[in-house]
Amino acid sequence: MSAMNAFYAQSGGVTAVINASACGVIETARKHKSKIANVYAGRNGIIGALTEDFIDTNRESARTIAALRTMPGGAFGSARYKLRSFDENRAEYERLIEVFKAHNIGYFFYNGGNDSMDTAHKVSLISKKLGFPVTCLGIPKTVDNDLPVTDNCPGFGSVAKYVAVSTREAAMDVKSMARTSTKVFILEVMGRHTGWIAAAGGLAGRSSAEAPHIILFPEIAFNKRAFLRRVKECVEKYEYCVIVVSEGAAYRNGQFLAEAGTRDAFGHAQLGGVAPVVAQIVRDNLGYKYHYAIADYLQRSARHIASAVDVQQAYAVGREAVKYALQGKTAVMPVIKRLSDSPYKWRIEPAPLSRIANKEKKLPRRYITKDGFGITAAARRYLEPLIRGEDYPPYFNGLPKYATLKNVSVKPLLKTKFVV
Amino acid sequence: MSAMNAFYAQSGGVTAVINASACGVIETARKHKSKIANVYAGRNGIIGALTEDFIDTNRESARTIAALRTMPGGAFGSARYKLRSFDENRAEYERLIEVFKAHNIGYFFYNGGNDSMDTAHKVSLISKKLGFPVTCLGIPKTVDNDLPVTDNCPGFGSVAKYVAVSTREAAMDVKSMARTSTKVFILEVMGRHTGWIAAAGGLAGRSSAEAPHIILFPEIAFNKRAFLRRVKECVEKYEYCVIVVSEGAAYRNGQFLAEAGTRDAFGHAQLGGVAPVVAQIVRDNLGYKYHYAIADYLQRSARHIASAVDVQQAYAVGREAVKYALQGKTAVMPVIKRLSDSPYKWRIEPAPLSRIANKEKKLPRRYITKDGFGITAAARRYLEPLIRGEDYPPYFNGLPKYATLKNVSVKPLLKTKFVV
Repeated sequence: MSAMNAFYAQSGGVTAVINASACGVIETARKHKSKIANVYAGRNGIIGALTEDFIDTNRESARTIAALRTMPGGAFGSARYKLRSFDENRAEYERLIEVFKAHNIGYFFYNGGNDSMDTAHKVSLISKKLGFPVTCLGIPKTVDNDLPVTDNCPGFGSVAKYVAVSTREAAMDVKSMARTSTKVFILEVMGRHTGWIAAAGGLAGRSSAEAPHIILFPEIAFNKRAFLRRVKECVEKYEYCVIVVSEGAAYRNGQFLAEAGTRDAFGHAQLGGVAPVVAQIVRDNLGYKYHYAIADYLQRSARHIASAVDVQQAYAVGREAVKYALQGKTAVMPVIKRLSDSPYKWRIEPAPLSRIANKEKKLPRRYITKDGFGITAAARRYLEPLIRGEDYPPYFNGLPKYATLKNVSVKPLLKTKFVV
Repeated sequence: MSAMNAFYAQSGGVTAVINASACGVIETARKHKSKIANVYAGRNGIIGALTEDFIDTNRESARTIAALRTMPGGAFGSARYKLRSFDENRAEYERLIEVFKAHNIGYFFYNGGNDSMDTAHKVSLISKKLGFPVTCLGIPKTVDNDLPVTDNCPGFGSVAKYVAVSTREAAMDVKSMARTSTKVFILEVMGRHTGWIAAAGGLAGRSSAEAPHIILFPEIAFNKRAFLRRVKECVEKYEYCVIVVSEGAAYRNGQFLAEAGTRDAFGHAQLGGVAPVVAQIVRDNLGYKYHYAIADYLQRSARHIASAVDVQQAYAVGREAVKYALQGKTAVMPVIKRLSDSPYKWRIEPAPLSRIANKEKKLPRRYITKDGFGITAAARRYLEPLIRGEDYPPYFNGLPKYATLKNVSVKPLLKTKFVV
């Protein structure tokens, strides 16, 4: 078989280490030029494929590609764009295959979360149906850590480390000022449906006496009375209370706390996350002085404090995806299998996309303490290895020196345009 | 003169490097045991002196004291507690001197901002008046960088680095998703009255095409029309717009964009939540999808990304304060004098507290671009050296290993209690 091209795209919310996966894909592909001539990256993810807007990664030096390993964000652009089912939008799939055919693309590497694994799976099925079979590989990526089968998801370890470090540091600040200033500090973190990120905040302390004193998980219905009782208890016992709240924290009826926002003087719905809502509950009922932080994108882009284990795994899933493809495996995703907690050992192995697509892994109840406000020893055993090691980017004049890519476009070959 | 004890207290909001100053004080004092027998640290700052609640730092090992250099927060507790004028509250000053006398305290080191320099100055005057002259030294500390005379304030360089790094990282995230997701990202930073911290966000980009595209300073009255025009321009030109907004951003009439209504012990309005206000202005007028982050305490406790220059200077002002005291200087503060921008050179010299107390250094207009939304080359020349170098704390199992102090109390000697 003569060399074909590969298509690589990033999908959905980016992470601090998604480019490490790109690095793994491209560096490994470059070692097999006889089989993979070039890796075309989709500009803005799958949209790049639909609109025939490819980035020619062969135009980037080995040094630049190596630097992807330490670069946050999505080096080629990512997209929130979900292909619908074949019946719903046949034109999109036909277009994709037409473009792949025109550019001699025999390999499709899709770096994303649940939705993307579904897309990669569909493309593998449909490419065969349309007579141009493409080898389709999923590459896991999500800060939410909610993909099934794999022990954990690249991207999560770094956001977990960021949240644990930030919680520990902010807690030390609050503790030292508690006598005369802020009593309650709230840190809002991501995780709309699952509490993995919030749970990571729990690593900041080693016991229930240490911050964070309360974690609010999406998996545990918010109980205002129990919450307020615990806040009061903490302030009385420790002089302060640190709370990590998931953006997905919700009432028993499923309503997000964040949706229960107040209205301003003009009747406008007060914008904001869940942190100000929790703050207001504390203020209205207990009157304590509070502060809150909303980490938002800072948490998932904080490459400066990435977990070394996470970077290694992100690279490894990219590398293995290419190896699997070259072995003729298709419709699979490299997953991380944990071999032992202590010492932490893991390996990569393939798993069929059909087992992964559109499924969501929630934080197990046994990872949450009985009272619903903390993490258990089992959770610590699971989480701790994932934040291990520092993988600092290079710095120049006090700031991280992140890669700058040329991102040169591949000449379009089709006469037709496709509007997404 | 036989050895006397020293009193050291932290005051006001803590920083990532205030303990480095404590380290400088204690390590230097320990080298002069014949003059300074012990450094008593105030538990919760000046409150520890008023209530005769001292921490015996001689009980801490050399290793623990050395570890203060990498520990965020306030190791002995800080306080927002301002001594009033002598006429207003003579009892507080008399109590202070009574306690100092009882514990043979001849040196007072007060580590804080404007208000604290005023207190240190008053104590020096009053102690003489009351017949127990105490050598009073101010030690500068404030993330706000608003102390006069000194070129910059320890604490600022690290928050500046955090804000610049975070802005750069978040901007890369937003840029890579802009095609189908968030167009406008807002980062809210501290700086009640001065835009120094917001200005530091400007270091994230090297030109007006790079993020942050807009900085909202307290020094520049908020002009909604010009702001919206610039946001639109950026989104049309770059596909996205990153905004750094100071908590102190205000309208022409002086009203803060966000006012929480409550006031702290110093009578300052407690701010918070300008980011959602700016987001709402964007949404209501331009309809762009937005996200915002509120760094809050994370920015001033982020020891994991402290500036090496800042750590060095924080240590140096502590060390020099002790040296000045031993030279018989009183009512002075070590200030940082910049000798050159490039290469960056500085030295420490003494300045009288009377020149520093209760004065505020605003961001000069020449540091802000003509349009009011960015920083000038002069600002870059000033700011850049302050964030240079990384001074990483040690890590254990993925988390910074911060010092744990014994904080053993000194036995009270007075029979009277004092309620603050």
